Formats: sequence, structure tokens, C-alpha cells
Amino acid sequence: MRIDGALFERRLDELYAIGAQPAGGALRGLYDDAWAEAVVQVERWMKEAGLKTRRDAVGNLWGTIAGTDKGKTIVTGSHIDTVRRGGRLDGALGIVAGLTAVEALLKDKGKPKRTLEVVAICEEEGSRFSTNFWGSRAITGAIETVDPDVAGAMRERGLDPAAVGRAARDDIDTFVELHIEQGAVLESSGAALAVVSAIVGTAHLELTVTGRPDHAGTTPMDLRRDALAGAAAIVQAVESIAKSLGRPAVATVGRLAVEPDQINVVPGRVVFTVDLRHPDLAGRRALEERVRSLGATITQERGLDLQIRTLQEKPPVKMHPDVRALLARAAKECGVQAAEMVSGAGHDAQILAARCRVGMLFVPSIGGRSHCPEEATKPEHLELGTTVLAKALELLAY
Amino acid sequence: MRIDGALFERRLDELYAIGAQPAGGALRGLYDDAWAEAVVQVERWMKEAGLKTRRDAVGNLWGTIAGTDKGKTIVTGSHIDTVRRGGRLDGALGIVAGLTAVEALLKDKGKPKRTLEVVAICEEEGSRFSTNFWGSRAITGAIETVDPDVAGAMRERGLDPAAVGRAARDDIDTFVELHIEQGAVLESSGAALAVVSAIVGTAHLELTVTGRPDHAGTTPMDLRRDALAGAAAIVQAVESIAKSLGRPAVATVGRLAVEPDQINVVPGRVVFTVDLRHPDLAGRRALEERVRSLGATITQERGLDLQIRTLQEKPPVKMHPDVRALLARAAKECGVQAAEMVSGAGHDAQILAARCRVGMLFVPSIGGRSHCPEEATKPEHLELGTTVLAKALELLAY
Repeated sequence: MRIDGALFERRLDELYAIGAQPAGGALRGLYDDAWAEAVVQVERWMKEAGLKTRRDAVGNLWGTIAGTDKGKTIVTGSHIDTVRRGGRLDGALGIVAGLTAVEALLKDKGKPKRTLEVVAICEEEGSRFSTNFWGSRAITGAIETVDPDVAGAMRERGLDPAAVGRAARDDIDTFVELHIEQGAVLESSGAALAVVSAIVGTAHLELTVTGRPDHAGTTPMDLRRDALAGAAAIVQAVESIAKSLGRPAVATVGRLAVEPDQINVVPGRVVFTVDLRHPDLAGRRALEERVRSLGATITQERGLDLQIRTLQEKPPVKMHPDVRALLARAAKECGVQAAEMVSGAGHDAQILAARCRVGMLFVPSIGGRSHCPEEATKPEHLELGTTVLAKALELLAY
Repeated sequence: MRIDGALFERRLDELYAIGAQPAGGALRGLYDDAWAEAVVQVERWMKEAGLKTRRDAVGNLWGTIAGTDKGKTIVTGSHIDTVRRGGRLDGALGIVAGLTAVEALLKDKGKPKRTLEVVAICEEEGSRFSTNFWGSRAITGAIETVDPDVAGAMRERGLDPAAVGRAARDDIDTFVELHIEQGAVLESSGAALAVVSAIVGTAHLELTVTGRPDHAGTTPMDLRRDALAGAAAIVQAVESIAKSLGRPAVATVGRLAVEPDQINVVPGRVVFTVDLRHPDLAGRRALEERVRSLGATITQERGLDLQIRTLQEKPPVKMHPDVRALLARAAKECGVQAAEMVSGAGHDAQILAARCRVGMLFVPSIGGRSHCPEEATKPEHLELGTTVLAKALELLAY
């Protein structure tokens, strides 16, 4: 079975051009114009490949080839949305590779025994709304309420916010996804491919430090309650805690806003986020415990108030052992020894794991870069990943 | 000579209501609607007081009572603009007190020998544009170029940006201003009034720390070049440096912006400001030197790039010794012993000092609060300040 590498790269280019940003990178936010254009483009490719398409109640796009036997379906794909100034491969790779793999299988092997589906999941990144994993959460029936802004955006795309429950599926047997690693672990190990063993647990905290706004010229240093000086001490502590725990613990302050944000006013309030990850739940909780305790100490010492809100908390998720074994076998049959690794990034598989067997393949990211215009993977790695994905789908559906 | 305290407080209330913000405080930005409304209001009061009004080429409002003798004029007043969510007294006090003092003098003593003027300076705070001291710089003929945004806003108010040079004056003998201290020094000293000896020197720096944006889940701590972690270390250093130098040195990071400002992306770039003040030029330079050197060390150690841009640099300015003595004498004649102090905040007097004799009176700020809705001064202190200002104007102009 041969993958058409040129077609494959062309499709990635075409998808990357949709939502291209003036400063580089692409933005396809949930339900925005670029997003809608991309869905139309992928649906066209699905139809050209001979798949029967449909859009579900939240806008996930499914391309199906019915199996000759009965039973639950085999699904591959990824998310169609991007982060702001996102790269060419995150999400897009899994869709294009899945489609290309199924197309090659149909050409080579004909109709599958099991129904085979390619999915373009409507949203995973949360770059337009705080909806992370919107598409996969809808597939698992986990969406309980729809934010009014999201509901408005849905209506603009002809989707009924009251009908999100209809996107739920209980007929999926296995979901497999090819994704870039988005880090430098694979590249530095020299392996061309990895089977993912687990996805790390993530906690997103929002910290609000409140002090007192004062005139920057007239308030002596010893009389200040500077919210930013306190927040900066916590930012430093967050970094130190993760460093002292060592790999694979990571902790990141990614957003930070100052009030009143004036050059000559001592900051009265700072709101910032902390992203904490560890593949092991106890490790993640230890990280969070230390951040909370150091944050409390730092703010107390400075006469500042600290409020901590949990925005999101996702436990680590193990990939299904049978699917891991099958992916490793598929790699071997394609003549390559796959590495095993933990994913530091979140993926739809961690949500879908609640309803079906899941597995993931990683290909290396050059320089570990991702979520930026420099995001890239060697063409031979992309082709290898797609070939192994096709082999896995063959083992699952034929 | 008696100051009408009730009229005085009512005028402050009326001015504070113009540009009132939903969350408290007022915003009157240069040339915005609230600003224009406030100018109309003050002009009405000036006319009621019998002053002849005119607006100059940048929108400074002058109310004049011609003297019986020839010679340069005596000016009092302050700025009419505010910071965002500014308080009731900053700027407003100097205008209302100047007007009330001149009104009382006219009633009590009739026409002055020297021409007496009250000025509502159009801008000092830089809260709408980065134009700090726009009004006083125009009066000293120091404006060389007009930013296109400012020029557009001028045209909307019927002012010709090409004519700013016409606002320059060389016929002012003395400028005296009553202002709130905006800090807690006077209040804690127990004095009801102070004569300002000098205004601190201020340097405003903009620091840009550049690292590399990376995925927050997939990039191990030891492979990161986190711009915010580096910036936080500098924020800490700025605070430590000022603390270790001790009073009166102050250093403030008031603004800070993170890019790309995403919860799950390691910050690639952080831009922040540093406000450095010291009443003695050598002290201010020592502060800046240490900030620059520690900033360079911190960013080098972390593999980050650091760019520093000087946004503003104002040397310390001494008040004129004769005016200082005259203000102290005026206080004494009103039965009060004025303290002497350095101003930690910048004021129009420091700009006008290039063209005329300048002096300032301070009244205490309750709790040292300023640039916020809580800004307040005891009514008896406001009345005392206005009475001493009137006495000083009498000594100067009659």
C-alpha cells in the first residue's frame, strides 16, 4: 500500500492557507469564517475519496465508508481548528493523514469489513471560546450547557444549540489519531515514530492577586502592596517548583494581566493562569499543592490577597492497551520500531477514551516547535506516520 | 480674606462628575468628550468670577484679570485631565483653588497691580495619548512634532496641529500651584501643608524580553526560553533594588503585556515598563544603572534577549528659592508653619520652570491614596491650602 506523499503535502498546504494570518500562522477558530471554509474543503476531499459525509449537531464532519459486516465503527481523524497563529500540522495532520490512509485502503483493499470513518472534529484548542475539546465532548455526550456566545456562533452556522446532545455516539469501537509530538522528546531520541502510552493530566488554575493601586512616585517602597511584585514572585515559584520536581513535570504561566496597567501606578490587581501537567495524577496533585502553598505564603508575607480558581482539571488518561499493541504491530509490519511515550499535550483521544478504545501515533516535531508558524515535521516522517496509520486501520477494519 | 468652602467643594464635585466612570473614578482624557465638557464648565466659572477667558493653540484655558501695572504675569492653576478612574482632586484642586482664590482676591482687594491668570492646563497625565505634560510643554514652546493620533483629536476640537507653537509664552513671571501630595508623607508627619522644594527626576523605561513560544505541555522545563519567567525575575529585581537603596528611591513596574498570552503556550515575549524616581539626579541614574545591569544578567543567564528603550527622562527640578520663601511666608501669615518636602510625582511646574519662576503647595492625601477613586483630602486642609494660595497670589500680584 502506497501513500501519495505529494497529494498529502498539497492538502496540508491548502488547509494551512485557510485562515492564514498577516504575521504568519493560521487561525481557524470554532465556527468562524476560516473554520467554515476549512470544513467545506475537507468535505470536498472526503467526497472525492468516495466517503459519504455528514455534519453532526456541533459541526463535527464525518466521512464514512460502510463496512460489509455489522458492528461498531473504526474512526480516525483530528481537530480542524487551530490556536492563534497556529502551525501547519496540529490537527490538520490527523485529518489529512486519516483521509489519505482511508483513500489508499479503499483503492488497494476495497470495501472494509468494519465501517470506517474519518472525522474532522470541530474544536479542540479553545482559541475562540473557552470550549476546549468541544467536538469530542459532544461525541461523548458530555456537554451539558452551551455558553450564550457559543450558542450565537452556532446559530450563525445553522446549528441548533439545543440539539448538541444529538452529536453523542455510542457506536464507536476504536479511535486512532496521528499527531505531531509538539515537543522535542522524539526528535532528540532519534526515533521516527512513537506509540502514545498516556496523555498527561492537566490542571488550569487562575490566580488573582489583589493589592492596592498607588501613585508610583509618591508611595515609598515600604508602604506598597504591589500586586505585580507579588505575582512575579509566584511566577518565579511556579517555575522553580516544576524544575525542582524534574521531568516530566511542567508548569507554565501563559497569561497575565495587570490592573490598572498604567506606567505610573503601582499595580492593584494581577490575574494570571498556571498550567500544570504530569502523566501521573499524584505527581500533578503534588505540583498543584506546592503552587497553592507557596502562593499563599508569598501573598501573606506581602499583605496581598490571593484567590485561586480551577478553570479545568483533566486527569491523566491511559491509551487502550490493545490499541497500543496494535499500533506497535502496525509499525513493525511497516518495518519500523516505534518508541513509546507520554503525551505532554492534551488530545481528543483523552475525551473519547470515556466511550471507546483509543490510541495515538506521534511523529517528531522539528526543534520541538508547535503552536507557532515554525511548526514542521520532515516529509518522510509524515509519510511514515500516515503509512503506519493506514496499516493500523487495515488491521482494525479489514 | 475668606474662602467660600461650600462653593469650593461644590465645584470640585461638579468637575468630578464630568467623565465619571461606571466602576468609580473619572476619566477626562485629552480632547475627549468629558475633557471638552470640563473645559466649558471651568470657562463658565471663570466668566462668572469676572475673568476674561481664552483658549490657546493646544486647548489650555486661560482666565485673566489685567493688572493696573505693566510687567510679566502671575499664573496659578493645574491640569484638567485625569488618569483612568482618577480621583476628585488631582489637577482639579489646583484649578478650582486658583479660581476661588483669585475670585476672593478680586472681591476683597479689587484689581491687582500685576496681571493675574488662572490656567486649566489641557493635559498632564498622558492617559489618552503618550503626551504627558502636553499643555505645559506647549506653553514653554517645547513641542516639536504632533503625533498623527493627537493631531486628529485636535482637529476634532477645532484646533490646528500646525499651530501648536502659538501656545508658547514668554510673559509669565511666576507659576504657583496647589496640589494634593498623592503620598502619605505629609499625613504621617502631621503637617497640614507643605512647600515643595523639588520635583523628583523620573525615567520611564520600556523593557522587551524575548524568548521562544513553546507548547506548555510538551516542552520540558530545562528546554524552555520563557520570556515571562525572565521578566518576573526582573520585576523582582526592580523592587529589590529600590528597597535596598531605601527612601526616597522608588521603582515601579506598572504595565506588563505577555505574548501570545495563551494559557497553554510558554510566553515568547513580554513587554513591560519601569518607572524610576529619585529627587537627586545621581540617585536616579544609580537606580537605572542597577536595573539595566541586573536585567542584562538575568536575561543572559536564561538565554533571553533584552531590549531597553527610554520612553521619558526628566531630571529633578528645583522650585525657585524666592517662590519657596514667598509660599512659606504666605503660610506663616495665615498662621500655619508649612513643612518642606520633595514631590515624588511629576507636575507641570517642572516643565514651566524652564520659562518662569515656579512654586508649589501640597496638602495631605488621606491614607496617601491618589490616582484612584479613594483620593481625598480633609475639607479643612483644602480650605487652608486655598487660603495660603490666595495669600501668596496677593503677595505676588498686589
